[in-house]
Formats: sequence, C-alpha cells, structure tokens
Amino acid sequence: MNALGRHILAEYYGCDIKILNDVELIEHYMREAVLKSGATIIDSTFHRFNPHGVSGVVVIAESHMALHTWPEHGYAAVDFFTCGDRVDPWKALKYISNKLKSSKNSSREIMRGLIEHETQELLEAQL
Amino acid sequence: MNALGRHILAEYYGCDIKILNDVELIEHYMREAVLKSGATIIDSTFHRFNPHGVSGVVVIAESHMALHTWPEHGYAAVDFFTCGDRVDPWKALKYISNKLKSSKNSSREIMRGLIEHETQELLEAQL
Repeated sequence: MNALGRHILAEYYGCDIKILNDVELIEHYMREAVLKSGATIIDSTFHRFNPHGVSGVVVIAESHMALHTWPEHGYAAVDFFTCGDRVDPWKALKYISNKLKSSKNSSREIMRGLIEHETQELLEAQL
Repeated sequence: MNALGRHILAEYYGCDIKILNDVELIEHYMREAVLKSGATIIDSTFHRFNPHGVSGVVVIAESHMALHTWPEHGYAAVDFFTCGDRVDPWKALKYISNKLKSSKNSSREIMRGLIEHETQELLEAQL
C-alpha cells in the first residue's frame, strides 16, 4: 500500500489572543509558513468573524494549509495536507506555532489515500 | 473537556475519473454539499492541475470543506471541519460521495480543540 498524501492536524493552545483576531497578520503568517515548507502557493482566502475569530486556507500545488482560530479560548486549529517528498509540513507548523506564541500544542499525522498497486496500474491505463 | 470542533477525513476510492478532473463540476458539487449540511458559504477557490487533478476548498462560517483529487488513482480526499451543532457534515459527505460515484469509501472523525473549563473562563475574562 502507498499513501498518496500526509495530513497533519495540529492544535495550538495558549496563543496570543490579539494575533488570533488579526486577519491580515494571520494570512501573512500562513503564506510565509507555506513558503518555508517548500510548497507552491496557488491562492489564499482569509476571513475575520464577528465578534471574534479568523478562518482561512492557503491552497497549494501540493494540497492545502488551513487555520481556524477561537481567540476566546486562545486556541487555533491548523491542518496541513501535502503530497510528495519535496514539502516539509513540519517547517510550516513550527513557524506558525512560534508566530501564534502558542504555549502548548499537539499534533497528529494521518496517511491519506492508501492505494493498492493493482488498482494503481489499472487506473493509470485508463487515462 | 469540551471539543470546539469536529474534523472528518473521508477517503473516496473508485470514483468517476472524468468527474475528478472537472474543476467546474467539482466546485459546483462541493458548494451544493456544503449547503446540504446546513453550513454558510463564505468563499470558495478551486483549481485544475496539469496533467490532472483538482484541488479546492469552500470556506464556511463554521470552518471549511476541502477536496483534492487524484484521477489517475480514481481517488478523492475530502475533509470537513465544522463547529457547533447546527451543521451536519455527514449530509455533505454523503452527497459528495454519490456525485463522485465512489465505489468504496472510509472516514474518520477527529475532535479538535479540547478545552478545559478553567482555561475557558480565564480567557473569556481577558476579551
């Protein structure tokens, strides 16, 4: 079995509340994080909610990096989905953790798209 | 402990290869899926890659729904992150599975943002 992608889900607690509410700064940090990982940015879209919170995603050639903040809990949820060996998602996640000034974090990595070799050959022949 | 969000990661195998390459159709299906879940669309961005594959995300008021396709493997990775009780992510996932004509799928649901009550009160007092 081969995995087509890696999906890392990261939880950042104890973050700076003002930063978690600053949509321009968050978008800047997220785009910088993606570049540090070695990924190629295709597009990004970020939004500030009322009364608080920021959501957004950077779509990359290698999949996506998304973020959602709950300033009222000092918490940000980040996920980074990537494929291939060229991108290092951990560089992006370390960078964003520092920028959010997270005092406590955890993460888990999940393999996505487990493909059997026979299926792979069959489908490639159809293209 | 309370979870702030639910994140469902779904794997769709044996999908229709032509649909997996059709960026306009995929964006339409994804937006329809989100509406069926009861979520509110904020923005969406989808892209077609060369030689094949589509990536994109619908940012919603309740977080996001993202999709990445590997037509050469008949595979699509979808994730739906939501918060609150109003949205039913499974309605969106069932809809998209049907539209992609997936013959085999699996999914897992992960709780995001586990908040202790004391932390919650402390941070709310700071806002």
